[in-house]
Amino acid sequence: MIYVFGHKVPDTDAICSAVGYAYLLRATGKDAKAFRLGEPNDETKLVLEKFGVSTPELLDSAADKDVWLMDHNEFNQSADGIEQANIVGVIDHHKIKFAYDKPITYIALPWGSSSTIVAKLFEIYGVEMPREIAGCLLSAILSDTVIFKSPTTTEIDREIAAKLAAIAGIDDLTAWGIEMFKAKSKIGEKSAREIVLNDYKVYEWNGKKVLINQVEVIDDSEVLERKEEILDEMEKVKREQGLFAVITMVTDIMKEGTTLLAVADDIAPIEKAFGKKLESGSVWLPGVMSRKKQIVPPLEKVLG
Amino acid sequence: MIYVFGHKVPDTDAICSAVGYAYLLRATGKDAKAFRLGEPNDETKLVLEKFGVSTPELLDSAADKDVWLMDHNEFNQSADGIEQANIVGVIDHHKIKFAYDKPITYIALPWGSSSTIVAKLFEIYGVEMPREIAGCLLSAILSDTVIFKSPTTTEIDREIAAKLAAIAGIDDLTAWGIEMFKAKSKIGEKSAREIVLNDYKVYEWNGKKVLINQVEVIDDSEVLERKEEILDEMEKVKREQGLFAVITMVTDIMKEGTTLLAVADDIAPIEKAFGKKLESGSVWLPGVMSRKKQIVPPLEKVLG
Repeated sequence: MIYVFGHKVPDTDAICSAVGYAYLLRATGKDAKAFRLGEPNDETKLVLEKFGVSTPELLDSAADKDVWLMDHNEFNQSADGIEQANIVGVIDHHKIKFAYDKPITYIALPWGSSSTIVAKLFEIYGVEMPREIAGCLLSAILSDTVIFKSPTTTEIDREIAAKLAAIAGIDDLTAWGIEMFKAKSKIGEKSAREIVLNDYKVYEWNGKKVLINQVEVIDDSEVLERKEEILDEMEKVKREQGLFAVITMVTDIMKEGTTLLAVADDIAPIEKAFGKKLESGSVWLPGVMSRKKQIVPPLEKVLG
Repeated sequence: MIYVFGHKVPDTDAICSAVGYAYLLRATGKDAKAFRLGEPNDETKLVLEKFGVSTPELLDSAADKDVWLMDHNEFNQSADGIEQANIVGVIDHHKIKFAYDKPITYIALPWGSSSTIVAKLFEIYGVEMPREIAGCLLSAILSDTVIFKSPTTTEIDREIAAKLAAIAGIDDLTAWGIEMFKAKSKIGEKSAREIVLNDYKVYEWNGKKVLINQVEVIDDSEVLERKEEILDEMEKVKREQGLFAVITMVTDIMKEGTTLLAVADDIAPIEKAFGKKLESGSVWLPGVMSRKKQIVPPLEKVLG
C-alpha cells in the first residue's frame, strides 16, 4: 500500500491534497490511503466536516513503507522514519531541497496550492471527481492562496477553483473562504503558546535556526491587543528550542498585509531583510501574505 | 528567452528532449530555444539528419539566463554558470539531487527517457507534433531504452513510441534502432581515448571519484579485441583526472549484457558491488544494460 501524506503541522492543503491524491491513485488501480502527520487545525476540521470527509489516520512512522509526499519535499518537514521509507513520488509547490537515490515521480508546479496540482491530475487522468473531494481540494486552494489574495496565486488556481466550486456546489467562494479563515483564527480561545506555534516551520541558515509562524485572521486587532503576551511566549519558545529567532506573521486577510512580530538573538538581520525597523517588537508589512514567497526569501538572502 | 538544454556529454535523449520541449514551449506561447552542452555523438547526428532537424547551438554559459534543464538535474552535469542561472523548470527521468530556493516546475517520471515525458506533455497540452519532432523523440526513446531492452523501459515508453512512430513514418522500430546503434558504435574508427570517454559520467562517493563510461554495440567482439589497449587508456585517464576508478561498460545490445572493464586504486569494492571477480580487468554481466539502474546503485551501496 502507498501511504500518502502532507507535511507535519498540517494545514488544509497538506491534508486535502493527500485525501485527493490517494483517491486518484485508487481510481487508477493503485492501493493507496491518505494519512496525516499531526492534528488537523480548526479550519481543516471544518472543511472535512462540511464535505463529509473522514479525518485521515495519524501516521507514526514512514519507515519501511511505500510513501507519497504531498505538499512538502524536505525531510525535516516529513514523517519520522522518512529516511527508511521507499519514496514512490512527490507532489508539491514549494521550493525544492530533495535527494533520492533512484528515479521517482516528482511533480512540482509553482502554483498556489498542491491541491491545484492534484485537481489538474484528475483532469489529465480523466478521472471523475466526487463532490466531497472537489470541496476538499477547493477549500485547500482558498486556504493556501488566502482566497486568491496571496501573490502565490496563479491563473490556473482560479480556473481550477471555479471548476471545483461547480462540482462541490459552492456558489460564493469568498463567503466560504472567510468562514474557513474565521474557524482557523478563533484567536480569542487560544493560549499565547497556541498562537505562537499556530502554523510554523523551522528554517536553518548557517547554523541559525529560525521559527516562522503564521496566524491568518479576518481582523488582526484581536491578536495585536495581546502583543506583549505573545512576544513573551515567543522569547520562551526561542530559549527552549535554542533558536536564533522566532517570528510570528499576523496576516490580516481583509487589510491584505502582515504585522511581523519578531524576537531574535540579533534583530538587525531581520530588519535588514525587510528594510524596516521594528518598533516594540513588531512592524507592519503591507501586501505581505505569503511566508514562502515574501518572508523566507529575504531572510534567506540575509542569513543564508 | 528560455534556454532549454540537456546534460553535458549529450546523448540523443539530452539533445532531442530539449529540441522537443523547446518546440512545445514555443507552441504554448513562450519564447524558448534548444541548446546543447557539447558535441552530438554520431548516433544523434544521424537522427538529426534523418529527420531534418538542425543541430542546436552550443551554450557556453547559463549565467544570468532563464533556463530549463532537460534529462538531468544535478548541477555537475549541467551548464557552466548554472549557479548563476534563473532555473524555470526541470524535466528529467534520473535520480534527484536538486535544491533551488524558490518554487519552480519540476517534472520527473521514472520512465525510460525524458523524451517520453516530453511526448506525453504534447498530449496533455493538446499540441500537434510535427513529423521531425516525433522522429527525434522516438529515436531518443529507442536510444535510452536500448530498443526497449533496458530494464528502465516502461509500458508507457512502448505506447508513446508507437504513436510517435506513426507520426514519424517509421515502420520498423527495431531496424531503425539498430541503424542508430551502429552509427553510435563505429568502434573500428575510434581511438582508445574516444572509446574510454564515449559516454561517461563522473560520480563521487565519500571523496572517491568514479568515471563510468558506456559503449553500446551490436557486436562486442570489435571492442573486446582491443581490451588491453582500452584498459591502458583507462589507467591513463584515471591518473590524469585523479580518479578512484574508471569503468567502461561494453554493452552488447543483441546479447543483452555488459562486459565491465575496470581499473581502480582498489578493485575489491567493485568486485563486491557486483558479486563477481574480474579476470584480466573485465567481467561479463548478463542482463546488465543500464548504467543508471544496474551499475550506479550497487556501486553507491558499496562506496557511498
